[in-house]
Amino acid sequence: MTINFETSPERYHHWKLSIQGATASLAMDVQEEETINEGYKLKLNSYDLGVDIELADAVQRLRFEHPEVKVVVITSLKPRIFCAGANIYMLGTASHAWKVNFCKFTNETRCAIEDASHNSGQRYIAALNGTASGGGYELAIACDEIYLVEDGNSAVSLPEVPLLGVLPGTGGLTRLVDKRKVRRDRADVFSTLAEGLKGKRAKEWRLIDDYFPTTKFQSSIDARVKEVVETGPKLEAIGIKLNPLQVEVTDDRRQYKYIGVKLHREKRVADLTLRAPEADLPTEPDDIQALGDSYWALQAYRELDDALLHLRVNEPEIGLVCLRTAGDIANLLAVDETLAAHREHWLIREIILHMARVLRRLDLTAKSFFAILEPGSCFAGNLLEFALAADRTYMLNDPSQVVEIATSSLNAGAFPMSNGLTRLQSRFLANPESADDVLAHQGRFNTESADAAGLITAAPDELDWDDEIRLAIEERTSLSPDALTGMEASLRFAGPETLDTKIFGRLTAWQNWIFQRPNAVGEDGALTNYGKPTQAKFDYRRT
Amino acid sequence: MTINFETSPERYHHWKLSIQGATASLAMDVQEEETINEGYKLKLNSYDLGVDIELADAVQRLRFEHPEVKVVVITSLKPRIFCAGANIYMLGTASHAWKVNFCKFTNETRCAIEDASHNSGQRYIAALNGTASGGGYELAIACDEIYLVEDGNSAVSLPEVPLLGVLPGTGGLTRLVDKRKVRRDRADVFSTLAEGLKGKRAKEWRLIDDYFPTTKFQSSIDARVKEVVETGPKLEAIGIKLNPLQVEVTDDRRQYKYIGVKLHREKRVADLTLRAPEADLPTEPDDIQALGDSYWALQAYRELDDALLHLRVNEPEIGLVCLRTAGDIANLLAVDETLAAHREHWLIREIILHMARVLRRLDLTAKSFFAILEPGSCFAGNLLEFALAADRTYMLNDPSQVVEIATSSLNAGAFPMSNGLTRLQSRFLANPESADDVLAHQGRFNTESADAAGLITAAPDELDWDDEIRLAIEERTSLSPDALTGMEASLRFAGPETLDTKIFGRLTAWQNWIFQRPNAVGEDGALTNYGKPTQAKFDYRRT
Repeated sequence: MTINFETSPERYHHWKLSIQGATASLAMDVQEEETINEGYKLKLNSYDLGVDIELADAVQRLRFEHPEVKVVVITSLKPRIFCAGANIYMLGTASHAWKVNFCKFTNETRCAIEDASHNSGQRYIAALNGTASGGGYELAIACDEIYLVEDGNSAVSLPEVPLLGVLPGTGGLTRLVDKRKVRRDRADVFSTLAEGLKGKRAKEWRLIDDYFPTTKFQSSIDARVKEVVETGPKLEAIGIKLNPLQVEVTDDRRQYKYIGVKLHREKRVADLTLRAPEADLPTEPDDIQALGDSYWALQAYRELDDALLHLRVNEPEIGLVCLRTAGDIANLLAVDETLAAHREHWLIREIILHMARVLRRLDLTAKSFFAILEPGSCFAGNLLEFALAADRTYMLNDPSQVVEIATSSLNAGAFPMSNGLTRLQSRFLANPESADDVLAHQGRFNTESADAAGLITAAPDELDWDDEIRLAIEERTSLSPDALTGMEASLRFAGPETLDTKIFGRLTAWQNWIFQRPNAVGEDGALTNYGKPTQAKFDYRRT
Repeated sequence: MTINFETSPERYHHWKLSIQGATASLAMDVQEEETINEGYKLKLNSYDLGVDIELADAVQRLRFEHPEVKVVVITSLKPRIFCAGANIYMLGTASHAWKVNFCKFTNETRCAIEDASHNSGQRYIAALNGTASGGGYELAIACDEIYLVEDGNSAVSLPEVPLLGVLPGTGGLTRLVDKRKVRRDRADVFSTLAEGLKGKRAKEWRLIDDYFPTTKFQSSIDARVKEVVETGPKLEAIGIKLNPLQVEVTDDRRQYKYIGVKLHREKRVADLTLRAPEADLPTEPDDIQALGDSYWALQAYRELDDALLHLRVNEPEIGLVCLRTAGDIANLLAVDETLAAHREHWLIREIILHMARVLRRLDLTAKSFFAILEPGSCFAGNLLEFALAADRTYMLNDPSQVVEIATSSLNAGAFPMSNGLTRLQSRFLANPESADDVLAHQGRFNTESADAAGLITAAPDELDWDDEIRLAIEERTSLSPDALTGMEASLRFAGPETLDTKIFGRLTAWQNWIFQRPNAVGEDGALTNYGKPTQAKFDYRRT
């Protein structure tokens, strides 16, 4: 089965997105039977990947299609239940790889909510009209504010440890102590308390911002929404439509307009080629707005995002992606110049933020990336980020042919990594001035000057090129895929740590470990036995 | 088999420690047959836990017994080989829990080397007179300077990923990019290159500091040592002897002078009781030096360190440790006052640094800790750190009995956690001023004021006390030990990340995951098949 990551509000099964002026309501109403896989029902607003694909789509559309929205209320249409979290039977029956990819995507979606809040001024309010447990509370904690109904029953909880023997791994543990700064001993009690906490104590422990009795719940949320809407300037922007992507699919190829993926499954390699923009694209925001989602910088990166998600979930055996580019550096730099000149315009800002998110998706993809810089390639400006994001960068050294790369001002900070640094800063931790030197460099780099500037890994000459690339690819794809995942996750994110890197690094790695442990997923494991008449039996040796 | 963590130089099998003035030489000469377990030989200066226990002992003794030492040269007595790293056959046959505990201890030892360098002015030089591979290079990279012989053969390498399908998990990957700040693409190439790199390129890539031809190797090291020794003031201090600890062992008890461990194996619980100092301990450094290792602050923490290591390795089924204290708060605070007043004295400095290391060992121990504050307990000053380090703290609320806690000035920064914060700062991330308020508080806290100050988790009254503690213990020990390990590792270290927390968090978690994966440890796994005629066969799906 091929998972499709594209959707749109009129196709949602599980969410109702409605907009009223500057306020959006994103209401969860999961349809039990509408599962992405077989063998379970999505009871009590529990979710699977399909539910989260819709949420991710809504968060994205709110930014591009509804820039007038200043506050997004996430709530539920089911009585007395907000959300029960990831569906446990789905987790219990899913393969290890599926669990890991599912958690990664849901984590990225929650980070996207925080990105919208921090960078686009769309404030997220979790209106918990019923119990939020596990991933349900983790969704709430990704919002800016959390309000819980006081009905004598509704609680927030993280029951993963006591009930399932796994972690609240969709950011829950990290956001508890690092975002909401819950005292660690209280976080400990809360994370082992299956029934969770209600009203007063939940507020006192910083788990929620406030609680309201049932009769006053809606009016209190409305009042808070009004308050937020009335703060700051009114947003007059009119959105653009995100249309479905067009992609031609054959057995070994996915061809979008600007992105092409060619699969060499027998070699476990894919070529991913990014095509640079055409000449003479508009330079004024109004004209770009008229182009809408067909403007290169938006379309190419939306296509890329889809291609990356496809490779992750639908092509698990592809271990190495060769990043290639094609096109005219001048055209690419012209786009970057336009983007840089109009960063304050809402649409340009959103386009840049989207590019940054897609690049972070690439950083977080558990596949190796080699960037291949050849005649005709266009690793410049925003596309240079791909060379910097790659695990290695090979650039042909042939004085008889033109192979060039170039920076734009966008490389100086428009596309921060999860660790908060630019990819140039992450590259040159030992010599921070080298990053400045690269940005100050006049004109393009040829292979020699790129090598001297520290921008490439290797520069084989034309005699060695084919063999060296082939050998490097063969060698890479022969290595243990698990060791590579751990290695790349360690080497890609040097320097400072942030909430995001903690979630994708430490928390995820622990969860992945637990997802392999017999105490969770073995025959006697807690996840395996949840909801069955049988009981989990633990090997109690601490590790 | 019970592992004993105590040793001393005259009992070393694998290391030769020699001192000449301000220079120490710590030379590795691993005896193949002297293994801590059965079934493998320690060829090529490869190591197992036994080898590392001696190294940890040497690093510790250098600080207490040889404060005159300003530079420690780590080298090998074997020709053409520095160290081949952790023994692969040992890793291939060890249980998961053994591998994890082994790696944790070796990581702590390497952090202790860095602690000695940063805080005690003992500079570590790795004199690689031969190849340093895997853990051998990870030992070098924990030193301040790395020099490699240029003999046409010797190299530094991290062959774990290409040869074994696991990570260089003893800090290697993290120190590559975060300590030595090797460019990430070069780190990627290096970490997949089984044969490693030599001389010129190794230096260019920042993997080593310099290389010297065989004939000039020793003289170049000597010259560098001389340079370091001649820098800064001569250290006139005369060390103290660290004598063997005295411990009475019965089946369910380990009784040291100040530390007692009582095991309730059927309940998977241990009581660990720390006894406060006697009255009227000396207050002058010279008198403390005369007491030597029998001075309370040193003896109690050495005993505690031994008890913690014992619990980790020899009592894996103990999941929860109840931390208890006994004694007079006034005596405890008097010791802290003495320590604080003489922090500049070398021995007092070393005693405090040692206490800090032991407390960090506790933070990093994969067992739950509950601190139990009752009448007669003495959670004050340095012993208050145990209440702050615990996952939860229970304090009896009985106005008819005296239950008190108190701070000393040492709680303000003498015992940093791995994240660089004090335990008070880590506790009060939401309200940093609360940490200051606690330190500014006049006099002792009773249960009510401790609760109000946020210092305790729960304060059951005398009617509920026994039941509440019993239930909390029963509940904790019923949970999945793996989920608890991941949860505690996440909740204990909020706030900033450091090299240490990255190593014990992200890197270790990824390694533990890989140590569970069939691609490493399964029948067809790379670790299982290393050195056998059979070949590893991978499931190439990326996760």
